Amino acid sequence: MTSLDDLPLRPELRGKTAYGAPQLDVRHRLNTNENPHPLPAALLADLGTALAEASRGLNRYPDRDAVALRTDLATYLARTSGVPVGADQVWAANGSNEVLQQLLQAFGGAGRTALGFTPSYSMHPIISAGTGTGWVDGHRRADFTVDAEAAVAQVRAVQPDVVFVTSPNNPTGTAVALETIEALYDATRGMLVVDEAYTEFARPGTRSALTLLAGRPRLVVSRTMSKAFGMAGLRLGYLAADPAVVEAVQLVRLPYHLSSLTQAAARAALAHTDALLAGVDAVKAERDRIVAALPGMGLTSVPSDANFVLFGHFGDAPAAWRALLERDVLVRDVGLPGWLRVTAGTSEETDAFLTALGEIVPVVGAGQGG
Amino acid sequence: MTSLDDLPLRPELRGKTAYGAPQLDVRHRLNTNENPHPLPAALLADLGTALAEASRGLNRYPDRDAVALRTDLATYLARTSGVPVGADQVWAANGSNEVLQQLLQAFGGAGRTALGFTPSYSMHPIISAGTGTGWVDGHRRADFTVDAEAAVAQVRAVQPDVVFVTSPNNPTGTAVALETIEALYDATRGMLVVDEAYTEFARPGTRSALTLLAGRPRLVVSRTMSKAFGMAGLRLGYLAADPAVVEAVQLVRLPYHLSSLTQAAARAALAHTDALLAGVDAVKAERDRIVAALPGMGLTSVPSDANFVLFGHFGDAPAAWRALLERDVLVRDVGLPGWLRVTAGTSEETDAFLTALGEIVPVVGAGQGG
Repeated sequence: MTSLDDLPLRPELRGKTAYGAPQLDVRHRLNTNENPHPLPAALLADLGTALAEASRGLNRYPDRDAVALRTDLATYLARTSGVPVGADQVWAANGSNEVLQQLLQAFGGAGRTALGFTPSYSMHPIISAGTGTGWVDGHRRADFTVDAEAAVAQVRAVQPDVVFVTSPNNPTGTAVALETIEALYDATRGMLVVDEAYTEFARPGTRSALTLLAGRPRLVVSRTMSKAFGMAGLRLGYLAADPAVVEAVQLVRLPYHLSSLTQAAARAALAHTDALLAGVDAVKAERDRIVAALPGMGLTSVPSDANFVLFGHFGDAPAAWRALLERDVLVRDVGLPGWLRVTAGTSEETDAFLTALGEIVPVVGAGQGG
Repeated sequence: MTSLDDLPLRPELRGKTAYGAPQLDVRHRLNTNENPHPLPAALLADLGTALAEASRGLNRYPDRDAVALRTDLATYLARTSGVPVGADQVWAANGSNEVLQQLLQAFGGAGRTALGFTPSYSMHPIISAGTGTGWVDGHRRADFTVDAEAAVAQVRAVQPDVVFVTSPNNPTGTAVALETIEALYDATRGMLVVDEAYTEFARPGTRSALTLLAGRPRLVVSRTMSKAFGMAGLRLGYLAADPAVVEAVQLVRLPYHLSSLTQAAARAALAHTDALLAGVDAVKAERDRIVAALPGMGLTSVPSDANFVLFGHFGDAPAAWRALLERDVLVRDVGLPGWLRVTAGTSEETDAFLTALGEIVPVVGAGQGG
């Protein structure tokens, strides 16, 4: 039996384990911020038509530049942000993970450094490592917000080639002020990537970094159809930036990276944008219901602009995680002492989660103050 | 207007252009080795069912490990190679390009070197560059075959971390003897990747490197559904190797890299393996018809085990390429002086190609001997 140690693996990968949340067969899966609502029947019908049409041409390579899809994505971004976005400013790939990997291949890599404000999306340092990019942990306040002044000072000191800002932040939930993003842009000579995977769930008044793109060629906004669009299984991530950034990622993208089926299905979904985004309000209502119920149990949460809530404190968060799992509720232990993350979904899921939480708090205890 | 030069791009990417054959609207597209035969009606029907089922679950992330698909791929490999292949020996990704990229992320990367015997699949050096892996051109004989003794000597001298062997070779067409692959394996301490994208088209008696896997944990065989399976638009590449190699690529793969639609469509296609591979014989017959017709025009070809033919010589291959394009036949100028590459497809395409070739040879001339 050969083991990994017998192979000429890169030394920094030795002893590592593959990234990913446990995929457990649990009744209430509230651990990966999926959208529990099934797709609308009208969209399923259109998907059937679009995928059948695409299937008839599957013997041919897909459009390498995905021009039609990028045009539809640009239309969506322009309509929802209020600023003009052209197809030449948009790039799409298999999940925003691949978008970020392409950005790091173009602007990071060996001898270069990325910085992100942890705790944040855990794939940022992992994709950096996978592309040979060095990683520096940026600091946050104890309440998980980014202190603009301290962040700018750290960026000036480290001089990273790529800066990541996740807004709304995952796993903590709070959006970052645009003024902070502007200040970080001015402070760095590198690329500034604002990961807006959860932006459609933000509280009223939150503005997208898309509104900052004009005149900032080193700014990139990344998005996904996995969350608000409820299409996690489709794997469609995208970015908006200066057209020169799109040219740059085209130098490193694998040719024909995006299948004909993916392009067709994503376009079909975008034609149902209004119906899909209608579900966002329902999810936000459930999120707010979770937030409102926590204090009555002696718990608290971090202000959330996303479809999840970071809740605590627990004296022993892993014990609370296990106790919830025993009640058929799977949440995420993101490794922050005292905290757990729960996805907001249907009202039935909220009921099940709050009921289970009410049962376990007397057992595991809400510890260490709010 | 911002240009690429205004961005903090990696220096080695400056001045580069994106890889990819021209996507031109030409009647006979014989330049990317696609399968011109539309998918069988029974498969299209099953694809409709499978994709509709997968669409209903699109709000959830796909199976991160694609276990069902890998099981089906293993069954296919075991059946056609005659050697046992388990699902734990198989890994799949978005095209064999992504499989190769993951292998280089795990076993190549900064400070490491890959070697391939050029001319060969042009993505091998490009993906190496994209992962920061150094590249060394291996040598071939003037007839484009690999001289086992010289290849072994070069591998011993360079000590690459990854060795690529394309068999059948692209763009030249000839399969590599298994004895050469065995000798290269023994000569290297690195990984040996045998790219068998075209292997289903090989002439009778050609054996797959799958038959060498047992006892060789550093050997990897990569495959694709783009060619013999006629599913270029699906983007499904895969590898077979020791289970430890699969563990290694799982350390660098992006989580949920393979969409639910891709997994479902690939499984539907594999259930129609016999019908899809029946088309392979028809393509091989067209390839052999092209090969047989060339000498009558004063042209020659490289022995082909693939669904394409490298043909020449021309005094001016780019002029011959343009003259064929003017006759609505798009072939590939792979940059080998005197040679062009044509995809074998339908009999109508062969007719059109040979007619156009017959017209242009008197004009552009068959030059520089056979």
